[in-house]
Amino acid sequence: TKIAVLAGDGIGPEIVAQALKVLEALDVSFDFEPAPVGGAGYAVAGHPLPAATLALAQAADAVLFGAVGDWKYDTLPRELRPEQAILGLRKHLQLFANLRPAVLYAELASASSLKPEIVADLDILIVRELSGDIYFGQPRGIRLVLDGAFKDCREGFDTMRYSESEVRRIAQVAFQAAQKRSKRLTSVDKANVLETSQLWRETVIDVARDYPDVELSHLYVDNAAMQLVRAPKAFDVIVTGNLFGDILSDQAAMLTGSIGMLPSASLSAGHKGLYEPAHGSAPDIAGQDLANPLATILSAAMMLRYSLQQPQQADRIEAAVKKVLAQGLRTADIWTPGTHKVGTQAMGDAVVKALA
Amino acid sequence: TKIAVLAGDGIGPEIVAQALKVLEALDVSFDFEPAPVGGAGYAVAGHPLPAATLALAQAADAVLFGAVGDWKYDTLPRELRPEQAILGLRKHLQLFANLRPAVLYAELASASSLKPEIVADLDILIVRELSGDIYFGQPRGIRLVLDGAFKDCREGFDTMRYSESEVRRIAQVAFQAAQKRSKRLTSVDKANVLETSQLWRETVIDVARDYPDVELSHLYVDNAAMQLVRAPKAFDVIVTGNLFGDILSDQAAMLTGSIGMLPSASLSAGHKGLYEPAHGSAPDIAGQDLANPLATILSAAMMLRYSLQQPQQADRIEAAVKKVLAQGLRTADIWTPGTHKVGTQAMGDAVVKALA
Ligand SMILES: CC(C)[C@H](C(=O)O)[C@@H](O)C(=O)O
Ligand SMILES: CC(C)[C@H](C(=O)O)[C@@H](O)C(=O)O
Repeated sequence: TKIAVLAGDGIGPEIVAQALKVLEALDVSFDFEPAPVGGAGYAVAGHPLPAATLALAQAADAVLFGAVGDWKYDTLPRELRPEQAILGLRKHLQLFANLRPAVLYAELASASSLKPEIVADLDILIVRELSGDIYFGQPRGIRLVLDGAFKDCREGFDTMRYSESEVRRIAQVAFQAAQKRSKRLTSVDKANVLETSQLWRETVIDVARDYPDVELSHLYVDNAAMQLVRAPKAFDVIVTGNLFGDILSDQAAMLTGSIGMLPSASLSAGHKGLYEPAHGSAPDIAGQDLANPLATILSAAMMLRYSLQQPQQADRIEAAVKKVLAQGLRTADIWTPGTHKVGTQAMGDAVVKALA
Repeated sequence: TKIAVLAGDGIGPEIVAQALKVLEALDVSFDFEPAPVGGAGYAVAGHPLPAATLALAQAADAVLFGAVGDWKYDTLPRELRPEQAILGLRKHLQLFANLRPAVLYAELASASSLKPEIVADLDILIVRELSGDIYFGQPRGIRLVLDGAFKDCREGFDTMRYSESEVRRIAQVAFQAAQKRSKRLTSVDKANVLETSQLWRETVIDVARDYPDVELSHLYVDNAAMQLVRAPKAFDVIVTGNLFGDILSDQAAMLTGSIGMLPSASLSAGHKGLYEPAHGSAPDIAGQDLANPLATILSAAMMLRYSLQQPQQADRIEAAVKKVLAQGLRTADIWTPGTHKVGTQAMGDAVVKALA
């Protein structure tokens, strides 16, 4: 089993190291192959997604991804910035389904900015389409137009688009995920304004006929952003497009107050997937043994479940994470008085120990 | 002073009636001209924005708007649905600047789903561009394309677009609003992905040179959705495009937990404006004297301030609303034990009395 290990920038290397430690403690043999990505890719090969890194990711069974981005690279032209690596991997590996759980462990409820009764035991899953929409639609660019006074004026433009088959395949992923959970799916769009959303909604309704056991509802994206604030526990699975999913999955993650705990999976049509924490590269705390490795460790668990068909091993890791939380161990980001503060490495070691 | 009064559907007529009562109690002479809009427009004239209603709105100095929408009209084709009236008015009156305050009155802090210390005394202003973006961009539609297997497949598409001059004029409104407040402006875009956002950001930075006293920062929309949950009081004024503004202004409104309190103004280049509550038509409680009229009354105050150059009268209304809250009067949506529950009309009467 070949795993491409793309640790990236900032805290990426140290959190990925803990996930590897946990994976190595399982009775599974992996072939871990590291490669530079993001700013690290630019530094060694002049591009955030070096050709060799992409080739490795394509050849591997799964990709374990840390995080990319650092202030050092902020002045680069957009096409060389670290985050282009993420967009490139999604596109080339055809990672069309992004699973973003927003889970709040009971022990961490006080970290949320929401009242405990609103968020305690929150457990929702956002299924974001990841390879289409306005992220990749053509045409796009900046061009000259005439303004109201018939003077030359620049205009920026982008194309939002979804085909029926693209909507169909992400809807299927979402309905199947809902079947394994509470069987309620909310599709989010802006069908009162956008033609793309109108096609999205019609197609989701059509796919629903194959999943009669799942209760489907629809929300406009503005209303979804409101309801996520008002009563997030009313949701089970949410499915939406790339742009709305970008916004809502991050909003939902922040509802938990502990984004250092949240994993994600980005899947293609086969078993191939890319697994990464929902948080960023946090260059301000990099290399100081301060970062929370649990989101990356939980991403490794998702990898076992979705790409490697080892659900028991995934369960073991998730149980071990719950155990260290129950033991009161906390990295700085989730520490509260009365709990025991530990560093990145000690947290990784504790999860390994809890596996036993 | 001619005011077009478009009460609309659901609770629209009863909340607008309270706002008119308050306006009539001022020492200002108005010429109120009612006209049907939304479902009510469709019912009498076969269109949500009847030609006579649009003509009146164009001729008036300002538009006082209630709310539109009712289940009765849910099965109409999209172009005849009530909300098309809003889009039509924005387009024809060139209402490009939407001011959406998210204010949480200290007395109502417990209504929020967020912890009181996170939201008490929240006072932010979202400036949403309202006449451009993917709401109106061409081309848009549903067409046939070939899918991956070279089979015919429908595709929905829309065009996001902003010209430099459109960005410039909304940025100016936002900088000027920030100058009158805490002098901090956050521009929200998705410049790491969208060309439209790249032009947006460059243009806002250029406009900033005319407002050296305002501190400008930039956030990606996903991060803005997170920060609004984590620490909303860190914001002062937010400026963003039509689509992102739709989502973020509703999210911000819901942070307060009392959307029945929030007014809005939609302004054109002159003094013309449309004023409406941030909440919807709530057909489930229509006609039962249950609706909260304060958002509409506060919208009338914004009308006095922005369209009618009567800031003292606006101040009077706002002070009267604060007074009735301090007196403990609450409609059902904001009622808590220990406060005094009143109906729609009694609340309107109380505000009139508090003006004195
Ligand atoms: C870095 C950026 C391009 C990316 C996105 O917008 O998809 C990020 O926000 C994410 O959600 O993974
Ligand atoms: C009704 C709808 C078209 C409208 C919008 O999206 O602008 C509404 O959500 C709003 O924010 O006023």
